[in-house]
Amino acid sequence: MHLGAVVEYDGTRYAGFQRQKREITIQEEIEKALASATQEQTKIVGAGRTDAGVHAIGQVISFSTAWKRSLSELQRALNALLPSDIAILELLEVSPDFHARKSALSRKYQYTIFNRPVRSPLSRLYAYRWVGELDLEAMREALGSLIGVHDFASFGRARPGGSTMCQMLEVDCHREGDYIYIDLVANAFLKRMVRTIVGTLLLVGRGELSPQGFKEVLEARDRSRGGGLLPAHGLCFTKVSYPRRDAI
Amino acid sequence: MHLGAVVEYDGTRYAGFQRQKREITIQEEIEKALASATQEQTKIVGAGRTDAGVHAIGQVISFSTAWKRSLSELQRALNALLPSDIAILELLEVSPDFHARKSALSRKYQYTIFNRPVRSPLSRLYAYRWVGELDLEAMREALGSLIGVHDFASFGRARPGGSTMCQMLEVDCHREGDYIYIDLVANAFLKRMVRTIVGTLLLVGRGELSPQGFKEVLEARDRSRGGGLLPAHGLCFTKVSYPRRDAI
Repeated sequence: MHLGAVVEYDGTRYAGFQRQKREITIQEEIEKALASATQEQTKIVGAGRTDAGVHAIGQVISFSTAWKRSLSELQRALNALLPSDIAILELLEVSPDFHARKSALSRKYQYTIFNRPVRSPLSRLYAYRWVGELDLEAMREALGSLIGVHDFASFGRARPGGSTMCQMLEVDCHREGDYIYIDLVANAFLKRMVRTIVGTLLLVGRGELSPQGFKEVLEARDRSRGGGLLPAHGLCFTKVSYPRRDAI
Repeated sequence: MHLGAVVEYDGTRYAGFQRQKREITIQEEIEKALASATQEQTKIVGAGRTDAGVHAIGQVISFSTAWKRSLSELQRALNALLPSDIAILELLEVSPDFHARKSALSRKYQYTIFNRPVRSPLSRLYAYRWVGELDLEAMREALGSLIGVHDFASFGRARPGGSTMCQMLEVDCHREGDYIYIDLVANAFLKRMVRTIVGTLLLVGRGELSPQGFKEVLEARDRSRGGGLLPAHGLCFTKVSYPRRDAI
């Protein structure tokens, strides 16, 4: 049986999604829970290889299993076995050729900025604090220049063997109280791309770079032109979209 | 100089606000930071003695200090010295007779229920999860019976030497997505009162107790009639109100 699952996790104490030799990862925890529930070694594929400390509410995984009982039983078993900072939100049967990463049409990430002079104990794990005022109008204008197919080399490294071309489908930047949310939807993201885009966007918000200057950074296709990398704890992998026939 | 401060904290790793001999508390951390910043032993008073694991965004403290420099310097020093899960949000000079606890006219607490079948890694530290459906209309009706001056003995223990009479000033229960927020404002709260009220309210939400039955629990003035105590991590001390002249 070939299955797909939506996964939520608090990335705080993990070295990222992808299995590593010496550090604890999301993939390893899920594979351990699967092995324990199904009594067979199971390898999972994730839609996005989130970095150390990055959170997710919409990571998608796929795997094959010989599990014979109901999917709701498997989901309950996994959620009972997994640590409290990882949960399987949905579990469903998918077509045999479904691949969480390769079948994905687009990914959505959200970066959260906590914009207040004094730090916040209750948001410290899930938002990056920025003290000064930010010009959201300018930030929105800058983000608009990302829409479409571009070479994003200024904002990230290609994965081994990959290109730096991405199609940015949607961008948004809005404030709710002390929080500023930046949402990006693209067919694919380079390593550390969202955190570098938002780091560069902060220069625009602070008035140190114009929206036109931001566009020129994109067009330069030169990593040394982009802004600093923001911390991982403000980033959340929120959604993956698939062709309708995959039903996840 | 007599000062008042608004304090936010993540109560997860603390044995509550009030100083204890063997366990780490919010009061102890703030007094340690004050001693380090001002080079004098300083005792603080808190508006509410939050229990172990309870959070706050609006706890108020008062204390006297011989600090000679500006208040913003003291606030910055304290926030640099305090652990990341405690922060001083506001610091201001108050009248010499201001007492964070005794001067308070009312306190506000919020209990957060995460109402979804599957547990949520990202809200696990700050919301209590309830799986089943809840009838919010019935819960609101039940809460309404708390308004006014009542003996709340069914919902909590009096503090040593204290009475069990409280005046409930405002109640609210509303849903935002998967979250249900229950807000209570009273002149004073008994020990564990909010968590016991919400525990009893869940019986109403589940249809096991009618709003009229909830009212009868209140009127019984008998702790054995109230519902179970909910966990501390869903509770947050959100606001303290003072007479206007105290300016905090």
